[in-house]
Amino acid sequence: MSAHEKGYFTEADSVEVVTGRNANAADPRLRQVMEVITRKLHEAVKEIEPTQEEWLKAILFLTQTGHMCTEWRQEFILLSDVLGVSMLVDAINSRRPKGASENTVLGPFHVAGAPEYEMGANICLDRKGEDMRVRGRILDTEGRPVAGARIDVWQANDEGFYDVQQKGLQPDFNLRGVFTTGADGRYWFRAVKPRFYPIPDDGPVGRLLRALGRHPYRPAHLHFIITAEGYDPLTTHIFDPDDPYIDSDAVFGVKESLLAEFRRVEDPARAQEAGFEGPFWDVEFDFVLARA
Amino acid sequence: MSAHEKGYFTEADSVEVVTGRNANAADPRLRQVMEVITRKLHEAVKEIEPTQEEWLKAILFLTQTGHMCTEWRQEFILLSDVLGVSMLVDAINSRRPKGASENTVLGPFHVAGAPEYEMGANICLDRKGEDMRVRGRILDTEGRPVAGARIDVWQANDEGFYDVQQKGLQPDFNLRGVFTTGADGRYWFRAVKPRFYPIPDDGPVGRLLRALGRHPYRPAHLHFIITAEGYDPLTTHIFDPDDPYIDSDAVFGVKESLLAEFRRVEDPARAQEAGFEGPFWDVEFDFVLARA
Repeated sequence: MSAHEKGYFTEADSVEVVTGRNANAADPRLRQVMEVITRKLHEAVKEIEPTQEEWLKAILFLTQTGHMCTEWRQEFILLSDVLGVSMLVDAINSRRPKGASENTVLGPFHVAGAPEYEMGANICLDRKGEDMRVRGRILDTEGRPVAGARIDVWQANDEGFYDVQQKGLQPDFNLRGVFTTGADGRYWFRAVKPRFYPIPDDGPVGRLLRALGRHPYRPAHLHFIITAEGYDPLTTHIFDPDDPYIDSDAVFGVKESLLAEFRRVEDPARAQEAGFEGPFWDVEFDFVLARA
Repeated sequence: MSAHEKGYFTEADSVEVVTGRNANAADPRLRQVMEVITRKLHEAVKEIEPTQEEWLKAILFLTQTGHMCTEWRQEFILLSDVLGVSMLVDAINSRRPKGASENTVLGPFHVAGAPEYEMGANICLDRKGEDMRVRGRILDTEGRPVAGARIDVWQANDEGFYDVQQKGLQPDFNLRGVFTTGADGRYWFRAVKPRFYPIPDDGPVGRLLRALGRHPYRPAHLHFIITAEGYDPLTTHIFDPDDPYIDSDAVFGVKESLLAEFRRVEDPARAQEAGFEGPFWDVEFDFVLARA
């Protein structure tokens, strides 16, 4: 019997020695997950060959990340975000047929119970910023309009803050709203052009980004959750392709198919038609839902 | 240009998209380490295909592990220990020529400044437990005695507790001592037979062990740090091969070469020779130091 079959540790058989202990795990899924995690962790250690000091640095980084977590701050989710893990998990759970709109991460700023509006409403309650019209269609993968689709939208303001980050400075439910499509599947609403913003970077994850020569910014975007009976729920963003951070979203949320176009409209007649008194940004974007 | 070359996320190219952001990292070692960690993490996620709920469970586990860490408790080190990572890092940093004694983990109970004793001293200050004699030689890889070797030994008592875990119940520096070899390279001291003990299992790591059908016990052992001018320092244990947990050390510290033999001696003449009044356990173990 070899050393590892007896349960004794060897460098060469480290994975088998450790995972061999989980034979009595009650939950086969947990056993499988821990087999993969242990194997990949040992592969990483064997490739990195950390010194004891480097290992301790990693322990302290994880400890500081844990200590940064409170009821209001989730530093491990931030870590998952900046390592692309959140996007990867989202992608794996949102594989869709060709032509359907792609998912991206939900993010921490969704709030349930936003006001329901008629089409055309202006969700920017304090009117601060540059006027913007957003419109388009909710379609199925055959290009037919989806009636009764519920569109839950939220976004940061022109300073890069969500209402919940500026309680008292922004009205409650500023830049949030819920719309429902009619038979034509069309939607439209008014808001202000959102701005890029940093993820919280005053903790261990921010320090890691700086050490890696990375910035903490997310390019300007609008969030959507679109649901309709019989269709796969769609959680996504649309992005401004002219944003300075469009190619380097700190959390990797940008997918090529989610780039919208933000067109500046100066024509007074068109402004009046859109319900604005002056120039505005016009955004047109169709969402395609996959059948459930 | 492909989506990932533009910095946009795709499931297939997730590793390249994320690691591509680290091009400006000031420290090339950090960049390399994060490349490996990111790649192995994404490989693990792609193989596991976690649901969003499973991902959140992992986030919460790490958060609870962080919150368990205090000045006195290092739950992330425990996690590293029970996943065999601490042993693996130790093994990678302690590769030695054939014939030299193997390292094992230091553990959290070493205390600097233990009393220096003459050979033969009894380091069990309260005499509670079954008497034990430990003896052997410190040798080089050619089998020659090493003079002036400093042997720092510490162990749990017969209830499985170190002195620092039972302040007030055990004398300070109980079952700790430092010995220095003479020209013959021989050492001997007296103590009591140590007992198996659990690692702290009242936190997230203990819950993980239970979910995996694993126990938290470490088999009975003595710790040694042996140093000598011109030799590679040796941090190791010797183990009792008859311990019920010898094949399933919760932290994987057991290596086959570190199994000693604990022989029960009933002969009154031999007891007297060893400095005991009755039966005792006799342990003989040679340590072989590698040249620095």
